[in-house]
Amino acid sequence: MKQLRNQPEKVVAEALEGMALAYGDLVEVHRDPNYIRRKGIPPAGKVAIVSGGGSGHEPMHGGFVGHGMLAAACPGAIFTSPTPDQILAASQAVQGGSGVLHIVKNYTGDVLNFQLAADLLQEAGVAVRQVIIDDDVAVQDSLYTAGRRGVGATVLAEKICGAAAEAGASLDAVAALCTSVNASARSMGLALSPCTNPETGQASFTLGENEIEFGIGIHGEPGRQRIPWQPADTLTEMLMLPIVEDLPFKKGDEVLLFVNGLGATTLLELNIVYRAAETLASRHGLKVSRRLVGSYMTSLDMAGVSITLLRLDESMRSYWDAPVCTPALRWGL
Amino acid sequence: MKQLRNQPEKVVAEALEGMALAYGDLVEVHRDPNYIRRKGIPPAGKVAIVSGGGSGHEPMHGGFVGHGMLAAACPGAIFTSPTPDQILAASQAVQGGSGVLHIVKNYTGDVLNFQLAADLLQEAGVAVRQVIIDDDVAVQDSLYTAGRRGVGATVLAEKICGAAAEAGASLDAVAALCTSVNASARSMGLALSPCTNPETGQASFTLGENEIEFGIGIHGEPGRQRIPWQPADTLTEMLMLPIVEDLPFKKGDEVLLFVNGLGATTLLELNIVYRAAETLASRHGLKVSRRLVGSYMTSLDMAGVSITLLRLDESMRSYWDAPVCTPALRWGL
Repeated sequence: MKQLRNQPEKVVAEALEGMALAYGDLVEVHRDPNYIRRKGIPPAGKVAIVSGGGSGHEPMHGGFVGHGMLAAACPGAIFTSPTPDQILAASQAVQGGSGVLHIVKNYTGDVLNFQLAADLLQEAGVAVRQVIIDDDVAVQDSLYTAGRRGVGATVLAEKICGAAAEAGASLDAVAALCTSVNASARSMGLALSPCTNPETGQASFTLGENEIEFGIGIHGEPGRQRIPWQPADTLTEMLMLPIVEDLPFKKGDEVLLFVNGLGATTLLELNIVYRAAETLASRHGLKVSRRLVGSYMTSLDMAGVSITLLRLDESMRSYWDAPVCTPALRWGL
Repeated sequence: MKQLRNQPEKVVAEALEGMALAYGDLVEVHRDPNYIRRKGIPPAGKVAIVSGGGSGHEPMHGGFVGHGMLAAACPGAIFTSPTPDQILAASQAVQGGSGVLHIVKNYTGDVLNFQLAADLLQEAGVAVRQVIIDDDVAVQDSLYTAGRRGVGATVLAEKICGAAAEAGASLDAVAALCTSVNASARSMGLALSPCTNPETGQASFTLGENEIEFGIGIHGEPGRQRIPWQPADTLTEMLMLPIVEDLPFKKGDEVLLFVNGLGATTLLELNIVYRAAETLASRHGLKVSRRLVGSYMTSLDMAGVSITLLRLDESMRSYWDAPVCTPALRWGL
């Protein structure tokens, strides 16, 4: 697989340099340690939300830095957790005296390194809370995880909690909201092709000509089973049923429906899946009131899709609707 | 290549149904004939801009329908021109008495069918102008084209002219602005992989393990030459030089730099190319004042990139900055 890169070991660094040039009106990119932060002085009286994880999932998380969302994001090497010093430096740079919330996807390295950074931050007198996102119903434990993996709910939690922080909610309130978003969200995904690591040139796994990895993780880690290709409507139903049953989502629930491309999947396909997913949600009596369709949490160039359902309450809905201005999500401003 | 679809012949129709559900707050999707139009009554006193072309280039054009951009978009079958009756129906539905501008990419079928629709519109008493976009410097004629192909400048023309129409500029003024954007823009692209037509399951062409199609068209039509893989900085320079020399862009020119993914290319790669492109532009003495990075004009799941440079004047810059609210481009509102 050919890719647009120079030296493999410079992929993340050069992409960050590109982001610094392309989005200099919104963000500042700090190098060594690497983090992307909101432009300008950290606003006093507002909680700073910091997230991060391995690179290769763009636009997550760097694309979510800006007004109404993240204060900073820490990109690790490809599919590799950011280091505690990155997280510490980013948190210190953007905290404005009202505390820091770390939103952490449930992967062992991420959890460990964010915890180390949080300990150091606390020693330095900065109030910090950590919320772990673990919304993936596919598997109970996985290659990189004790417990469920964190996937699509991360995007929703960062948007909703970012709006709460922007509105001046306290650290405890923003952390409680984040916990509530995670508890109200469920996701699952599937892959039609593996992804190729640009640092190594290696495919993450192999799939037969007619095979699908059902319940895929965002690093290509195995899901529930290999299945033969099925029509999109069937695959969508196979993803939706375990999601709906797990929470469980109940008749009359108001929901946000998020159909996420894993990288190489076309918008034609995402819209076909969206059509099937909203139709199924309505058939289950769910009231889809908010929607997101696009490739927001990717696995490099993997072809595939994930679906996330979030049960909305009034506060989540109004924070979802609040203005946001980041490289990847912009509305209302 | 596996894809997320049901029956191949329903790909476009079902994707349109998905768009109708996902973006019902912004657009209405009309079926038979197919078009996507801005929600609500056509504003009186404003020019309606209508575009269209084969499906498979999403989010173009349907994703550009909304406040400050297109009044309607006509999607054909995959890589197939929309029919005159689609274009006529869409134009009639959205015209508010101040005329219609057709923005047409230079492909023989598109030009012919938009011309037929324009003739019928004019017979019906609707003032109509047509601007052909032909910004691709790769080849002088091609498989589907007499003259140069229309590529990335289309996105920029639709944004800039959409803002002018929104501001109440006359049909003649919006058409003149569109002509000026096209005359001030140059583009070229390359492919690292072919794309797969979901209606036929066929790859558009074949490429060797280490080969790149340099000067690719957005339907997979041949470019200038097949070349072996090169580092991203080299490939970017190979694209930038013919673009800069063709207009020619001159030292001191203020430009918008648009790095566009062709479908399966990751944001990591696009940002690496963006970094190289802006660095080269600056080295040529160009002043990059506006930027766009993302997959806005795709070729299904093709891996590759195109670069577009637009020489900005003050009016284009201010229309670029004006609010836009569409499924694919949103800011300032």
